[in-house]
Amino acid sequence: MKLRQILTISVKLKVSFLNKRCISTINNHLNREMSLPRNYFENTGLLKEGHYNLQVGAPGSKDLAKIATYFEAATESLSKSDKRFGETLQYGTMPGDKFVCDEVAKFLSRQYGQTVQSGDLMITPGASMGLLILIRRFTNPDDNMFVENPTYPVFAKYVTADKFIKTVPIPMEKDGMDLKVLQEKLEALPKKEVSKRWPFRALMYVIPTHHNPTGVNYSPEKCRKIVELARKYNLLVICDDVYNALNYVSSPSNPTKFEFSPQRLFAYDKKDDADYQGNVVSNGTLSKIVAPGLRVGWYEAPKRVIDSLQDTYDAVSGGGYNPYVSNLTAEVLKSGKIDEHVQHLRVAHKERMAAVISTVETKLGKYGVTISHPEGGYFLWIKLPENISSAEVLSDSSKNENVTFVKGEIASVVGDFSNYIRLSIAYYECAEMVKGVEGLCRSIERTINLKNRL
Amino acid sequence: MKLRQILTISVKLKVSFLNKRCISTINNHLNREMSLPRNYFENTGLLKEGHYNLQVGAPGSKDLAKIATYFEAATESLSKSDKRFGETLQYGTMPGDKFVCDEVAKFLSRQYGQTVQSGDLMITPGASMGLLILIRRFTNPDDNMFVENPTYPVFAKYVTADKFIKTVPIPMEKDGMDLKVLQEKLEALPKKEVSKRWPFRALMYVIPTHHNPTGVNYSPEKCRKIVELARKYNLLVICDDVYNALNYVSSPSNPTKFEFSPQRLFAYDKKDDADYQGNVVSNGTLSKIVAPGLRVGWYEAPKRVIDSLQDTYDAVSGGGYNPYVSNLTAEVLKSGKIDEHVQHLRVAHKERMAAVISTVETKLGKYGVTISHPEGGYFLWIKLPENISSAEVLSDSSKNENVTFVKGEIASVVGDFSNYIRLSIAYYECAEMVKGVEGLCRSIERTINLKNRL
Repeated sequence: MKLRQILTISVKLKVSFLNKRCISTINNHLNREMSLPRNYFENTGLLKEGHYNLQVGAPGSKDLAKIATYFEAATESLSKSDKRFGETLQYGTMPGDKFVCDEVAKFLSRQYGQTVQSGDLMITPGASMGLLILIRRFTNPDDNMFVENPTYPVFAKYVTADKFIKTVPIPMEKDGMDLKVLQEKLEALPKKEVSKRWPFRALMYVIPTHHNPTGVNYSPEKCRKIVELARKYNLLVICDDVYNALNYVSSPSNPTKFEFSPQRLFAYDKKDDADYQGNVVSNGTLSKIVAPGLRVGWYEAPKRVIDSLQDTYDAVSGGGYNPYVSNLTAEVLKSGKIDEHVQHLRVAHKERMAAVISTVETKLGKYGVTISHPEGGYFLWIKLPENISSAEVLSDSSKNENVTFVKGEIASVVGDFSNYIRLSIAYYECAEMVKGVEGLCRSIERTINLKNRL
Repeated sequence: MKLRQILTISVKLKVSFLNKRCISTINNHLNREMSLPRNYFENTGLLKEGHYNLQVGAPGSKDLAKIATYFEAATESLSKSDKRFGETLQYGTMPGDKFVCDEVAKFLSRQYGQTVQSGDLMITPGASMGLLILIRRFTNPDDNMFVENPTYPVFAKYVTADKFIKTVPIPMEKDGMDLKVLQEKLEALPKKEVSKRWPFRALMYVIPTHHNPTGVNYSPEKCRKIVELARKYNLLVICDDVYNALNYVSSPSNPTKFEFSPQRLFAYDKKDDADYQGNVVSNGTLSKIVAPGLRVGWYEAPKRVIDSLQDTYDAVSGGGYNPYVSNLTAEVLKSGKIDEHVQHLRVAHKERMAAVISTVETKLGKYGVTISHPEGGYFLWIKLPENISSAEVLSDSSKNENVTFVKGEIASVVGDFSNYIRLSIAYYECAEMVKGVEGLCRSIERTINLKNRL
C-alpha cells in the first residue's frame, strides 16, 4: 500500500506514475522480452522514480484513459438498443458479426487509403492468438515456418520454444527479407502433399510494414516476388499487419497530413490473377492503435482460409471470437473517434522518433553507433560497434541509469544481433522518452569507453 | 429486411422472435451439431414462426438482455475510476488481474459452497479455447486423450477431426466413466517420458458434474479413483466444469432453496496428499450462467500447470486473456447480481426440465422411450427403442413439426447412440419448450408407428 501511495503521488508519465496493475504489466513485458524471472522488476528496485522502460510495445496510460471514455460511450449507445445489446452477449456468428466486419472494413479502408472488403475479414482475439490459430490449423509441429531475422522478439523467443513449428530464419535486407536465401530454403523444403484440409506446404511469418524491430517497409518488388513464390511452393504467408495505420511520413509544408503506409502484402495476392489461389493473410489487431486489453483483431484472408478457420473447435464451440467486446469496439470505430486518435498517435510518435534519433546521433554518432530512420510503427533499432554487446550496455543502464530495453539477440530465432538494441517509442511521451534515451546514451558511451580502454 | 420485419413482429420467445443475429447464432449451432451446410436453416424455411430449435446450448434472449444491463452498470462503475478503467485496456497481467481472480474465486466459492482459492485460478478466454490451450500446451497430435462416450457433441465432432490429438472413448455408466475399461486402456498406453515441460503421458476430458449429454454426476468413489489413476499414469484430467452452479435439487418444503452440486473433481486432488503432483484442471466458463459472448472463463489448476500456461506465446504476447472484458465481468460478479441471476436460472430450468420429462414420459412411456432425470445442467437425454434412429425422427420432426435437436451419434467420437436424442432446456422458456417437445413426441410416435407397421 505504501509503495502504491508513493507511486501515485508522483507526476506525469514517469514509471513512478504507474499503479500496481501497470507495474505488473510492464513487469510481464520485461519478462517477455528479457527472459528475466517474473519478479525481477520489483526485486531489483527498478521501479523507483525515474526508471525508463524503453522496451514496452504498448500504448501509454494517458492514451488508454482517453480510449476508455470511448468505450463507455459505446456501451451507453449500445444499451439504448436493449435487444442488440443483449445479442452481443450471445454466441457470436462466424466469421464475425456482420456489423463488426463492416465497421472494421470501413475503418481499415480509411486508414489504408485502399478498399478493404468486409467479406474478406474474420474477427480474431487479437494478432497473437490469431497467429497461433493459423499455425495450428494448417501445420504440424514438424512443419517449417520461414521467419525474418530479426523479427518480433516475443515471437522469436516463444514460437520455437513452444514446439508449435520449426522456424527457418531468413536475413533481412533494407527492403525486406533476402529472397535469394528464401528461394534456396524453399528448394530444400521437404516434400509434402497438399489437400483441401492441408493446403500449405509451409508457413511464412513476415512484418512487411514498419517492421519490428528494424522499421523496414517491404518494396513492391519483394511483395510481388513473395506472392509468386508463395503460389509456386504452396506457402501461407502470414503478415503481422499491426502498425500499418502508423505512418509518419508527411511533407514539411503540411507536417500533420500523413501519407498512407505502403500497400499491404495481401493486396498483391490479386484475386483476378490467373494463378490466384489465396496465399496471404493480413493478421491485424487494434492493440497498437486502440487498446491491447480488448483482444480484438482480424484476418483479412482468402476465402479458403476463412472457410477452414471457421470450421474448427475454437470457432464453433466458442461461438466466434470475442463477440461482446468486438461489437463494442465496432461501435467505437463507427464513432470516428479512433480516426482522430490514430492521427494524434502519428503526430506524437513522429515527434518522439525524431527526438530519439537526434539524441542518439548527436551523442553517439562519433562512436559509429547508428539508429534506424523508420517511416512509421513503434520501434527504433540501434546498431552498436561490433565489439559492444547490448547485454553489457543493459547491465550498465539498468544499474546506473534505470533504463531497460530489448537486447537485439532476443529478436532472433538464432541469437544474432547481440550488438543491437530495440527501443519502443509507444509508451512514454516525448520529454520522458528523451530523458530515458539520454541515460541509455551515457551507458553506451561508458560501455564503449571501458571496452576501448581494455 | 422483409424477413427481419416479419420475424420481429411476432411475440415472446419463439424462434420467430429472433432477429438476424440470433438467427445466425442458432444457424451456427445447428451447423455445429448437425453437420449441415451453413445456410441450411434459412434455406429450408425452418425459421418460420413456431420453429423449435431444441439443440441450442445457449442462454435465452430475455436473460441476456438482463445481463446486458449489469454490464452497462459495471462500465459506469469502472469509468468512475478513470485510471483503473484505462488500465483494463492495457496488456493484462498473468495469470489474470488480481481483482478478476479474486472476484471469480469469491463467486465460485459462493456457488460451489466450497472454498475456491484465488491463487489457484488463471483467467481464460472461455472453456472452449481453454480446452484447446491445454491440449496444445501439453501434448502432440499423436498423443492420446481419454473421453467419455457419449460426450459434448461439438468436442466429439471437432477435436478428433481437427487433428489436435487422438481420442480414446470410455463408456459412461450411471455414476461416471467405466473405470475398468479406462484401466485397460491405460495399461495399453504407449510409453512416454515425462519431464518438467511435458509432465503428462496423456490427457483425459471429462464432464463430471451434470454431464453433457447424459446428466450424470460422478460418484465420490469414481472421483477418488480417477485422481489415483491420474497420479499413477501421469494423466492431466481436464474437467469441463461449466454447469456446476446449476443444481436443481431442493427439498419439497423449500423448493427454491437448492443444494450445491457434488464436489468438483479438482477438490479430490488434494494438495496435502503425500503423493500429490497436481493432475486435475477445472476448466470453467461464465458462458452458461452469465453470457457466452463475453468469452471469460478460468482454470482452477495446479501450480505446475498455471506456471507452464502463463509462459507461452499466447499468454505473453497477447498480455493475458481478455483483460478488459474480464475486469468488467469481475465488476458484475462483485455486484452480486449474478448470484441472483443463477438462482433465477435454477428455478426456471428446474421447471422446464420437469415439464419436458413429464411430457415425454406421459406421451412416449408406452413405447419404451425413456428420458434422463438430471439433477442440474442444460441437457436431457432421450433413449428411443433400439430399432429407431434419431436421424429418422429428425427427418420427420424438422419437416412436420419444425423441431430440431442433436442426434445422439454426434455426441460420440465413434458414432454410437444413434437411437438417442439430446435436448437443451436453456434457450426457451417453459411453455414454448413444452410446445416444441410435444411436436417432437408426435414425430417420435409417428416414426415408431411407421417402423412397427413395416
